[in-house]
Amino acid sequence: MTLTLGDIAKTIGAELEGDPGCEIRGIGTLENAQTGQISFLSNRRYASFLKSTRASAVILQRADRDLCPVARLVHEDPYLGYARTANLLYPGVVTAPGIHALADIAPDAVIHPSAYIGPHVTVGGNARIAEHAYIGSGCVIGPNVTIGAGTRLTANVVVCAGVKIGARGLFHPGVVIGADGFGIANAGGQWLKIPQIGSVEIGDDVEIGANTTIDRGAIENTVIEDGVKIDNQVQVGHNVHIGAHTAIAGCVAIAGSVRIGKRCMIGGASGISGHIEITDDVVLMGMTGVPNSIKEPGMYASAIPAMDVASWRKNAVSFKRLYEMNVRLRKIENKK
Amino acid sequence: MTLTLGDIAKTIGAELEGDPGCEIRGIGTLENAQTGQISFLSNRRYASFLKSTRASAVILQRADRDLCPVARLVHEDPYLGYARTANLLYPGVVTAPGIHALADIAPDAVIHPSAYIGPHVTVGGNARIAEHAYIGSGCVIGPNVTIGAGTRLTANVVVCAGVKIGARGLFHPGVVIGADGFGIANAGGQWLKIPQIGSVEIGDDVEIGANTTIDRGAIENTVIEDGVKIDNQVQVGHNVHIGAHTAIAGCVAIAGSVRIGKRCMIGGASGISGHIEITDDVVLMGMTGVPNSIKEPGMYASAIPAMDVASWRKNAVSFKRLYEMNVRLRKIENKK
Amino acid sequence: MTLTLGDIAKTIGAELEGDPGCEIRGIGTLENAQTGQISFLSNRRYASFLKSTRASAVILQRADRDLCPVARLVHEDPYLGYARTANLLYPGVVTAPGIHALADIAPDAVIHPSAYIGPHVTVGGNARIAEHAYIGSGCVIGPNVTIGAGTRLTANVVVCAGVKIGARGLFHPGVVIGADGFGIANAGGQWLKIPQIGSVEIGDDVEIGANTTIDRGAIENTVIEDGVKIDNQVQVGHNVHIGAHTAIAGCVAIAGSVRIGKRCMIGGASGISGHIEITDDVVLMGMTGVPNSIKEPGMYASAIPAMDVASWRKNAVSFKRLYEMNVRLRKIENKK
Repeated sequence: MTLTLGDIAKTIGAELEGDPGCEIRGIGTLENAQTGQISFLSNRRYASFLKSTRASAVILQRADRDLCPVARLVHEDPYLGYARTANLLYPGVVTAPGIHALADIAPDAVIHPSAYIGPHVTVGGNARIAEHAYIGSGCVIGPNVTIGAGTRLTANVVVCAGVKIGARGLFHPGVVIGADGFGIANAGGQWLKIPQIGSVEIGDDVEIGANTTIDRGAIENTVIEDGVKIDNQVQVGHNVHIGAHTAIAGCVAIAGSVRIGKRCMIGGASGISGHIEITDDVVLMGMTGVPNSIKEPGMYASAIPAMDVASWRKNAVSFKRLYEMNVRLRKIENKK
Repeated sequence: MTLTLGDIAKTIGAELEGDPGCEIRGIGTLENAQTGQISFLSNRRYASFLKSTRASAVILQRADRDLCPVARLVHEDPYLGYARTANLLYPGVVTAPGIHALADIAPDAVIHPSAYIGPHVTVGGNARIAEHAYIGSGCVIGPNVTIGAGTRLTANVVVCAGVKIGARGLFHPGVVIGADGFGIANAGGQWLKIPQIGSVEIGDDVEIGANTTIDRGAIENTVIEDGVKIDNQVQVGHNVHIGAHTAIAGCVAIAGSVRIGKRCMIGGASGISGHIEITDDVVLMGMTGVPNSIKEPGMYASAIPAMDVASWRKNAVSFKRLYEMNVRLRKIENKK
Repeated sequence: MTLTLGDIAKTIGAELEGDPGCEIRGIGTLENAQTGQISFLSNRRYASFLKSTRASAVILQRADRDLCPVARLVHEDPYLGYARTANLLYPGVVTAPGIHALADIAPDAVIHPSAYIGPHVTVGGNARIAEHAYIGSGCVIGPNVTIGAGTRLTANVVVCAGVKIGARGLFHPGVVIGADGFGIANAGGQWLKIPQIGSVEIGDDVEIGANTTIDRGAIENTVIEDGVKIDNQVQVGHNVHIGAHTAIAGCVAIAGSVRIGKRCMIGGASGISGHIEITDDVVLMGMTGVPNSIKEPGMYASAIPAMDVASWRKNAVSFKRLYEMNVRLRKIENKK
């Protein structure tokens, strides 16, 4: 799509310093953009590329304006300005509706005529697929599943029996929604499986990354509220409840019955223990371990940063004496 | 399914205090159960819901009996009582046998007439699928694979060439069994792949969670013994041996040639280094790192719990001085 | 395949002490090899099995020669010798070319006549699949994808639109290449998705493990250079660049815009924060957290090793006082 700088500035809410008729056909990085592309500066790591950029225009904060050799779109949040511009320039593909001849559809499934069902798809009994939904190649939709309007399952996504997914969702390849939770009881040294009779409810505008898994509830439902964004390879255990507009980066492990509040940001590779609660507006840095509830909004962390292996060997061994060191320290203090 | 309280009490081995003819049609949580549902109290976090529950009956320990306003099933292990009750009330779906017209079956595969093969399934040459097995949509069964009686592969499960799976297994969507192990040798700065000529042997009554991967052996087989339960997104490297009735929570990473004993419980997001041994009856808390063999049964842990980010910054930096702090401490002690 | 010891010794560059006409039909471990099999000794953990081995020959270092009761192939790197021998004895399956009747191929896809396309495969518009490529059951190849000569996608692999994959690659089941990166911008408390307009470029001789995910770039491409080997369940964020001949073990989480150098070895379950750089020839031990750039080659680590849970409780609590302990220690030192 081609747009003028004037149109972009107006739509994203930026102040334009440059030719409003200049045509923009795409987005590029400050370092590599070409004529006809727009760029942006939000991360300071890339500020040095500004003065030599060949972009036709740059979205930036007022403070960076004077360093910019080309047309400027001044925006208080250049990253958001970039996001809006990208949505204008790359509006997404519209797929023609229809059911592929190699799909297997249960006779009583209800599929809106504007939906697309790709090859090698399975749709189970009494499933309901709403208008403009997209079910890509190899997806498996279990019985009694509901898929909301405009929701896209890209490819090889599995949605198990009875799961409800809202509108405008985006589910990347390999996602599994509604597999059994890890419910087992010990019976004399052996494990007895517990039927997982709950389901999963997913709100509107939810995006789920590739190979992420969200388990069905043991008794009640696992719940993902509106606007939640989850990256790749995240594990969400049974009966987890994730509040609206929370974002979860890749490889996070969330044990069963965790309750996460609204607008949280969970850093990649973090782990959250079962049956605890994280309140609204909590930010976890990457690789944080959360064994207990977090009741105050704020930023939390626990990762140990990498060090050279010789130092690490000595320090990691010393960790086992940490409590004892504190005792010894107190003993010395008390002697004074 | 509808059962009477009397029948449930008898079958699960509980002492009934209430009307044995009361009809139970399902399970609910203490907080949300309705008339006709049975509930249970095992986790103390939920004890406060007992006195106001609307369940028709509650499975609980003798000590909680007097706080329960409705019919009671006294059981020494209420969680196990719940598990058994759930298996009575929700006995699982029986699928009609047959091979779907959109499955691709090698001419010399041997499929029992009571097995089910779904749409978009591939079954390779000389594969053997036993009675009442269920191979759901999109599964890929390689050549020479054996699937035991009653084992269920729900959807999009891949079982590579030569893998043997026992009876009554349950494999959730996206599971991959028998992909190549990570075997590479360095040849002058480049990696030479090593053919992975072993396979995978999985015992009876094994459950494997969604998107979990279990690699084939480099030379001999990777082995998962009877009754092992593995949660979602676990990685099991080549030549790992997991003893009977061990349970592994989500997102655990197990490197190659690890030997884990029987009846272990491995907490979520733990990591186990290659070529080590963990004896029987070991419990790892979540996010534990295991670089060396564990020779004594017991509980182990190593995770650092989350703290506010300001404290974390100071403490994480100090970690790099931990050994040096110990040296300084000893120096002061020695001066006395 | 059957080979003589003489041929093996010559091809792998080993010095043979034994009958060059001895026939070898396979590989076994020192502990369990049978007559007709060759074994090797590289990991000292298994040295005790040497003296009683029933292998027909053993690949070993000169120093171990005298302890070996059978024919010897002396090699300065026995593991590499084993790798080369395995490639001789197990040369891999050749698949007959052809397109399966249950594959769905876009009319304008270009598939070389020597390639194999399995059942339930989808190939999108304008995709190009080169000679001797293997696209196994259930794979989904998006539009405008390029798959190089001899590259094998085993089963249920998803390659999204526009991705370029080089020659001789090996992609295990459940791999997802080119799903959207995790690009979101906060717009007044809600997340706005950012179109991910970059793609993924993968070089020659790359192996990717089961259920690993590699995201497409936000603006420019994610790049995996030649000879990179990635194990299972690794997450590679958008715009990551991985240098040639780097090896990454299972369950590693790599955030967006990370640049990893050549010939690195990344230990399992490590986590690497976004927008940082790891130089060439860096080795990370397992479970290492990397929040900042690493500018010097060498070995790095940060994991805390498992300890018994009673010690752990005390030490983990003390960690929150670590900085304060250092301050107290300095205070005592300064008093002297």
